Amino acid sequence: MHQTDGPQSAGGHRGVTPTVHLFPATPQTVHWGFFDPRLPPALTVTSGDLVAIETLTHHAGDAPDLLMDAGIRDVFERVDDRGPGPHILTGPIAVAGAQPGDVLQVDILQAAPRLPYGSNLAAHWGYLYGEIPVERVTVYELDPSAMLGRAMFAYDWTATPLADQIGTVVTPDANRREPALADVVVPLRPHFGTMGVAPAEPERVSSIPPGDHGGNIDNWRIAAGGRMYYPVQVAGALLSVGDPHVSQGDGEISGTALEASLNGLLRLKIRRDLAYSVPVLETATELLVHGFGSTLDEAMKAATLRTLAILKGQFGLSRADAYSFMSVAVDFTVTQVVDQRQGVHGRIDKRCFPNWPGAGA
Amino acid sequence: MHQTDGPQSAGGHRGVTPTVHLFPATPQTVHWGFFDPRLPPALTVTSGDLVAIETLTHHAGDAPDLLMDAGIRDVFERVDDRGPGPHILTGPIAVAGAQPGDVLQVDILQAAPRLPYGSNLAAHWGYLYGEIPVERVTVYELDPSAMLGRAMFAYDWTATPLADQIGTVVTPDANRREPALADVVVPLRPHFGTMGVAPAEPERVSSIPPGDHGGNIDNWRIAAGGRMYYPVQVAGALLSVGDPHVSQGDGEISGTALEASLNGLLRLKIRRDLAYSVPVLETATELLVHGFGSTLDEAMKAATLRTLAILKGQFGLSRADAYSFMSVAVDFTVTQVVDQRQGVHGRIDKRCFPNWPGAGA
Repeated sequence: MHQTDGPQSAGGHRGVTPTVHLFPATPQTVHWGFFDPRLPPALTVTSGDLVAIETLTHHAGDAPDLLMDAGIRDVFERVDDRGPGPHILTGPIAVAGAQPGDVLQVDILQAAPRLPYGSNLAAHWGYLYGEIPVERVTVYELDPSAMLGRAMFAYDWTATPLADQIGTVVTPDANRREPALADVVVPLRPHFGTMGVAPAEPERVSSIPPGDHGGNIDNWRIAAGGRMYYPVQVAGALLSVGDPHVSQGDGEISGTALEASLNGLLRLKIRRDLAYSVPVLETATELLVHGFGSTLDEAMKAATLRTLAILKGQFGLSRADAYSFMSVAVDFTVTQVVDQRQGVHGRIDKRCFPNWPGAGA
Repeated sequence: MHQTDGPQSAGGHRGVTPTVHLFPATPQTVHWGFFDPRLPPALTVTSGDLVAIETLTHHAGDAPDLLMDAGIRDVFERVDDRGPGPHILTGPIAVAGAQPGDVLQVDILQAAPRLPYGSNLAAHWGYLYGEIPVERVTVYELDPSAMLGRAMFAYDWTATPLADQIGTVVTPDANRREPALADVVVPLRPHFGTMGVAPAEPERVSSIPPGDHGGNIDNWRIAAGGRMYYPVQVAGALLSVGDPHVSQGDGEISGTALEASLNGLLRLKIRRDLAYSVPVLETATELLVHGFGSTLDEAMKAATLRTLAILKGQFGLSRADAYSFMSVAVDFTVTQVVDQRQGVHGRIDKRCFPNWPGAGA
């Protein structure tokens, strides 16, 4: 599983060839529906290593003729221990030496679709199920070169009374597949819906609600070019990655995104010089601070207070200065409203701080 | 007040020279703090006309040495009828022939600062006043060529016990002006915080809460290059414009934006081919649908249902298709959380509909 002749340019350390770990998703390397700090690591890496990771969509059964290959089918057939959440997670990955109080930095270097199809489910937990009380699958074909998707067909969910059986595989039925979204394209935004460290709960924790360990944040900006910071909760950090999406709007209204298996290339690094106690995303131009709550109002309040704290702690502003800056220049956006804990994130434009030394590498 | 030799290129009608109305903000052309359908028009135009409009910030008194000129001072000194809202509105502008059921299209062709300064107040109605219980003014200097602002100074509000007296003019006091936000720049986003038609209430209506008439939407994208659609509520439409901002983040957390007087160039047009019953913003690439509510959760629900309705009515999608599209490709963003009625808007990317004929001109 180790490959030591990986691309030197990806390592970022001059003169040191980084270790690249090939980490396929198999029945032995995935766990389905939960985080659990008691899970033994499926892979152990050294800070600075790269991981070429496979992540599988738990919606592959929505159109198995398109969304499954042999490797995916193997996981669906052989992993019976599922729940309480629906997400297939690859991991956990232990980072040797990581301790609570550290921050795990995850650079997302690549995120590419494994198969050129994806599925969106309008689910019974969707935001408008009260208004549109039908569960319905819409399958999209992906054009990764144009970074666009197009709907191929849709069908109402009838495989089970409700789409609440984890990993249901629906027998393809051409008669029930109806045209959908003619003449509409959607931009692709490949990202990991769920990525996080093991929470400090000595038990199985549902993969559904996001939290300070990260997890099911469902921010489509957690994508290639992005860097996530997770506050380490337990020894080894124990990163797990899954719930891959190829697109999603802010909100994830129907209850799911455009779900499709992704291959990723990640670099993991222990940071001891950062004080983040909440999951933060850094991009080339922005720092995004995630807040959560049982309502959108609670999530908004959390996002504003956390953004305020980071403007003080990371950017050195006084509370009064940070507050004015937030009103004038920080954008708050709905992350999602369908994951039991709702999310809002604040966007700090790093370009507003020409003299800021940055968070380092 | 009429000028018939305006720039032909701005009219958009080949061979017809549009009428350009010069519409300065004076004690005779502004109303302060309210909409009221009983107000006589300060200007009457024909559909298709241009209006070169002045809008004044009601925060000019925060630093009158910088934010006031003779024209602004005249309005502050001579307009005593103020409230219940704080906003100085220029208008109303009647559009001849506009009737309830029509849509008033407002193209924003220009929006430029009148003076190179702006003020942000952290107010007692701000979102984090519970956590930061100080009212404080931060004055910024604007660089319109670089489209950046920089804080010049800040001071705690002491002119009145609370900043709740409309149009207070604070005597400049160099000793109380403290440095603020050193080495920080903010991007300028000149826009009209409040623009709307008269509501169909036969009375004075506060300018604070936004609504289906538009009004205090506080979306920084209501800017040059944007086109607003307002459902006409009363005969003549009676558009009023004010609360000018030169920047704001999504949220407007401190209770105000970066407030500064703006000169605008607007084109007003009656549309009878559109069914919008809510305020909608169109830009070159996007359609933004505004929802409001007493909580952010209510505003989000309204924004999603209104976006759904427009995807059906304007883009011809079925409810099921629209719902999937919204989950995969529509972004929902906090507009503001400080205007009594909170706001969320949905962003439809028009580029997703290559064959859409558009909303017309």
